[in-house]
Amino acid sequence: MAASETEVTTVATQPAESGADLTRSRLIDAARKAFGEKGFHATTTRDIASAAGLSPAAVYVHHRTKEDLLYAISRAGHEEILADMRAAIAGAADTPGKLEAVIYAMVLRHTREYATARVVNYELDGLSAQHREDIEKLRAQIQGIVRRLLRAGTAEGSFTVDDVRITSNAIVAMAIDAARWYRPATDPAPERIASHHARMALRMVSAAE
Amino acid sequence: MAASETEVTTVATQPAESGADLTRSRLIDAARKAFGEKGFHATTTRDIASAAGLSPAAVYVHHRTKEDLLYAISRAGHEEILADMRAAIAGAADTPGKLEAVIYAMVLRHTREYATARVVNYELDGLSAQHREDIEKLRAQIQGIVRRLLRAGTAEGSFTVDDVRITSNAIVAMAIDAARWYRPATDPAPERIASHHARMALRMVSAAE
Repeated sequence: MAASETEVTTVATQPAESGADLTRSRLIDAARKAFGEKGFHATTTRDIASAAGLSPAAVYVHHRTKEDLLYAISRAGHEEILADMRAAIAGAADTPGKLEAVIYAMVLRHTREYATARVVNYELDGLSAQHREDIEKLRAQIQGIVRRLLRAGTAEGSFTVDDVRITSNAIVAMAIDAARWYRPATDPAPERIASHHARMALRMVSAAE
Repeated sequence: MAASETEVTTVATQPAESGADLTRSRLIDAARKAFGEKGFHATTTRDIASAAGLSPAAVYVHHRTKEDLLYAISRAGHEEILADMRAAIAGAADTPGKLEAVIYAMVLRHTREYATARVVNYELDGLSAQHREDIEKLRAQIQGIVRRLLRAGTAEGSFTVDDVRITSNAIVAMAIDAARWYRPATDPAPERIASHHARMALRMVSAAE
């Protein structure tokens, strides 16, 4: 993505945003970048402050710890994907179309915004127990959306699924994992990878392509 | 798995094993358990020593750092999967059968030995740059095996694959991810999960089931 471009756009279109919100956006943006490059554990609050052009003390005013920053990034990332999935479902006519659109949307975001997606998905062990639990609830909602589609398609006779939970785990795993392996310099465009995954998901439930 | 049971069996059937090898086995076993429970970053050398019933100084005699222990565990885990995959290929008659057997073997080990598999696959950022590079070479071999099968099946006309790299990434991702979500108390038996994944892999390449 351009995590920073997104932030800048958001700020530009919200002229009423306060100075505190602006600082908070800059911090979250700097943390996302630092976690993506060095990993959560190797990143220090000082690294984040310096990337945001702030003093370490300023970090503590807005977020007590780097864990709070990770939580803010992870929550926003999961809520964004849930919104994408709901929009995809609303825009498709039938169950196979909905599954196809949901996986397309997930993979599109996980490849386009792969740097953020890596932090959102692969640094979860940096979260406190309470925050981890909150994030797991969002992840359960993501699985819930896919499972409901698999059950609906099976009931209608458009899908053949041996085990809804296992199939849903596998489909979501392959969609998220695109963020890990995707290399913008050498891989096909995100749209092509997203279509490919959507087609594989339909094949996994034996739906006509 | 029972990582510890495996170790004990190995030791018992190799009476010539030296005291140093025995200590090394105990240390690797204790580290595997500690990394699995607390994560690599949160585990201290003292935790490992204490779990192995040794003094922290004894750890340094056999492995300079906990990173060395992680590397030993990760390397052994990857080599084990490669051996499983090669045995699966050797035991199957045709390309669809080989793909099915390879995915079955991968998922069987990633569910049966899920605790070890989580350390092997999800703690890679604890490795030094050189060790990480060694492990990435083993991971490339795993992908290489799947890609060669996809190419062979496509050439023979038994598979329909749009993009060998993307399809192979997705198949391997879903196989490895079984270690993350598998819960022995509530999930079907590893053999059933392995069969289910093998069938999904065949569907993903549009092979007749």
